[in-house]
Amino acid sequence: MQKQVAILGSTGSIGTQTLEVIEKNPDHFKLEILTARNNADVLIAQSRKFLPNHVVIANEDKYNYVSQNLSDLPVKVYAGSDALEQIVEMDSVDIIMSALVGFSGLQPTLRAIRAGKDIALANKETLVVGGDLVTKSAIENRVNIYPVDSEHSAIFQCIVGEELNPIEKIILTASGGPFLGKDRAYLQHVTPVEALKHPNWCMGDKVTIDSASLMNKGLEVIEAKWLFGLKPEQIEVIIHPQSIIHSLVQFEDGSLKAQLGIPDMKLPIQYALGFPKRLKSDMERFSFSAYPNLTFQSPDKETFPNLSLAYQALHKGGNMPCILNAANEVTVNAFLEGKLGFFDMSGVIEKTMNSVAFIATPDLNDYVETDSEARKIAESYLFR
Amino acid sequence: MQKQVAILGSTGSIGTQTLEVIEKNPDHFKLEILTARNNADVLIAQSRKFLPNHVVIANEDKYNYVSQNLSDLPVKVYAGSDALEQIVEMDSVDIIMSALVGFSGLQPTLRAIRAGKDIALANKETLVVGGDLVTKSAIENRVNIYPVDSEHSAIFQCIVGEELNPIEKIILTASGGPFLGKDRAYLQHVTPVEALKHPNWCMGDKVTIDSASLMNKGLEVIEAKWLFGLKPEQIEVIIHPQSIIHSLVQFEDGSLKAQLGIPDMKLPIQYALGFPKRLKSDMERFSFSAYPNLTFQSPDKETFPNLSLAYQALHKGGNMPCILNAANEVTVNAFLEGKLGFFDMSGVIEKTMNSVAFIATPDLNDYVETDSEARKIAESYLFR
Repeated sequence: MQKQVAILGSTGSIGTQTLEVIEKNPDHFKLEILTARNNADVLIAQSRKFLPNHVVIANEDKYNYVSQNLSDLPVKVYAGSDALEQIVEMDSVDIIMSALVGFSGLQPTLRAIRAGKDIALANKETLVVGGDLVTKSAIENRVNIYPVDSEHSAIFQCIVGEELNPIEKIILTASGGPFLGKDRAYLQHVTPVEALKHPNWCMGDKVTIDSASLMNKGLEVIEAKWLFGLKPEQIEVIIHPQSIIHSLVQFEDGSLKAQLGIPDMKLPIQYALGFPKRLKSDMERFSFSAYPNLTFQSPDKETFPNLSLAYQALHKGGNMPCILNAANEVTVNAFLEGKLGFFDMSGVIEKTMNSVAFIATPDLNDYVETDSEARKIAESYLFR
Repeated sequence: MQKQVAILGSTGSIGTQTLEVIEKNPDHFKLEILTARNNADVLIAQSRKFLPNHVVIANEDKYNYVSQNLSDLPVKVYAGSDALEQIVEMDSVDIIMSALVGFSGLQPTLRAIRAGKDIALANKETLVVGGDLVTKSAIENRVNIYPVDSEHSAIFQCIVGEELNPIEKIILTASGGPFLGKDRAYLQHVTPVEALKHPNWCMGDKVTIDSASLMNKGLEVIEAKWLFGLKPEQIEVIIHPQSIIHSLVQFEDGSLKAQLGIPDMKLPIQYALGFPKRLKSDMERFSFSAYPNLTFQSPDKETFPNLSLAYQALHKGGNMPCILNAANEVTVNAFLEGKLGFFDMSGVIEKTMNSVAFIATPDLNDYVETDSEARKIAESYLFR
């Protein structure tokens, strides 16, 4: 049976790789919906190739352009963020690839869950910010959330069939990014171009900078808490520069299971969409002859304070991860625009965490307000 | 619910470690039967401590000694190999730990399977020799075979929950043993004492010598074929000196799963007895800080020809693995008794494989005769 797929954020890195997976598996997947924020030309090209039934361009200014360029096709075109949130409720959709970037993923994903749609979750910020709301809603609506982050996919793959067996701890692996082994002085002078050169993974700009700063791993720690129901002390991070072991689970008998492979996001994407079936794939196979040494080291929390900030936010709970995330989004943008030094990002995030009002049990509205407030405060710290 | 356990071969390495596992998990396991071949004193001590209902000493000469030393206890004592084969049919037994050494494990294990008993299989020779009979009988009698070899336990752990997903290949890890990196000239002069010093695993003498010669891995390749229904070309071997990754499975999507841990046979023993539940354990936990480098290399098939001999036997099928196994048992004993050089073992095995009559579809009787014939022929090659 074909699964009908909606892709939220189809023009980004995960979105385009999801389309590759769908293209290779026409017997298993049918594309139903594409959405993009701004990138009208790519959205049009994707729509002409894959012929979804519905297309949303979130930026309303681009509606006419998209609509006119698809007018010869049987594709319905919508515009605006309301349309994006509503489209996920379509009866014809079986599973939604949530590949929006940052906080913007939260509300559409929540809407999709409330509509009973299974979620392939590439947008980790959805769980970082609103993990309590999202996981509660998923349980209430009997919705499955399939992780797409390679680390969480690894853990998910390792716990299938282990329903009787509690997780003792998980170990998230991190490549260490392009600045592994560097010190603070070095980090003061790195450029966005250098930070965007990830050694192993091909990803979008935001997550690549987060990888370089270890914030990505921090956000993943928080994400893992919600996906797998863990306490902070059950989540470890280890640097593994080859990115072959994608993460590990330890059970109460002391046994560990790991998932491994050549770094390629198409694998967790395909696994999430195809679950419980692993679809045949011609992706490159791993060989120990190409990787005779797998190495591991502790993360350098002095040089990369973001990881500790994320653990602090996780321990504090409430809206603190939302504050962390908003401040991080602001600083990553500022760094990419050349307005902030690489190492200075952590300082702005920490100051923002200390400035925004703490809410212990926030609702969705509180998250939206916290996000907005934290962004303003982080902006105010950028140039001080 | 407590599982009632019978241990065939309770005085060996696996047998004694199985008793440790039972002792630590009194809520889950009750010891019902102990058997030993010769080691009366250890059998008596185990019986006094664990109070099984039935005890078998295979060597009939020791019946009186065992019986007298347990006469004050409510323990029934039997003697002889017939008793050993019959005892496995007891209604009170739920699961049988088959920890006999070598060919001697085949017939009692087959009897237990025909009696509908689940098997925890530590005796790999049972599958090496009679894999076709054993697996067919297990299916007919709806019996589960839980592997106890750490490598096969690793694969078994990695495929739980993957029932929909065919195995593309497996990778069995091998420590390489104490002579990893040595050449033929060196191997000509090694002593049994040197060969018995396994770098990572604490095991019985037979399997430790087999590890040093790579025959153990060869036997495991054949065992894996039967346990997991694989073709020879789906089974790879990689040398991994740290013995942390216990083996890996690759699926058709290219994803690999591995099971890891500190080398300790009690883990696979406990997993096999407790399946599907992982019982809490205080066994030492793995840490990457103690193992920052995991290394891998191809096996040296020139210096250790036994691995290739095992693949040859597997490809040939029929009674050839039985011949390989019998010749190996003879040469290992001869080496341990100082009658044969370490490297000369392979030559005797190869000559025996070329001398014993091949039978394409042997029955149990053919296996018994092949085993006997192969031993005679191997003995005849020992001193030539």
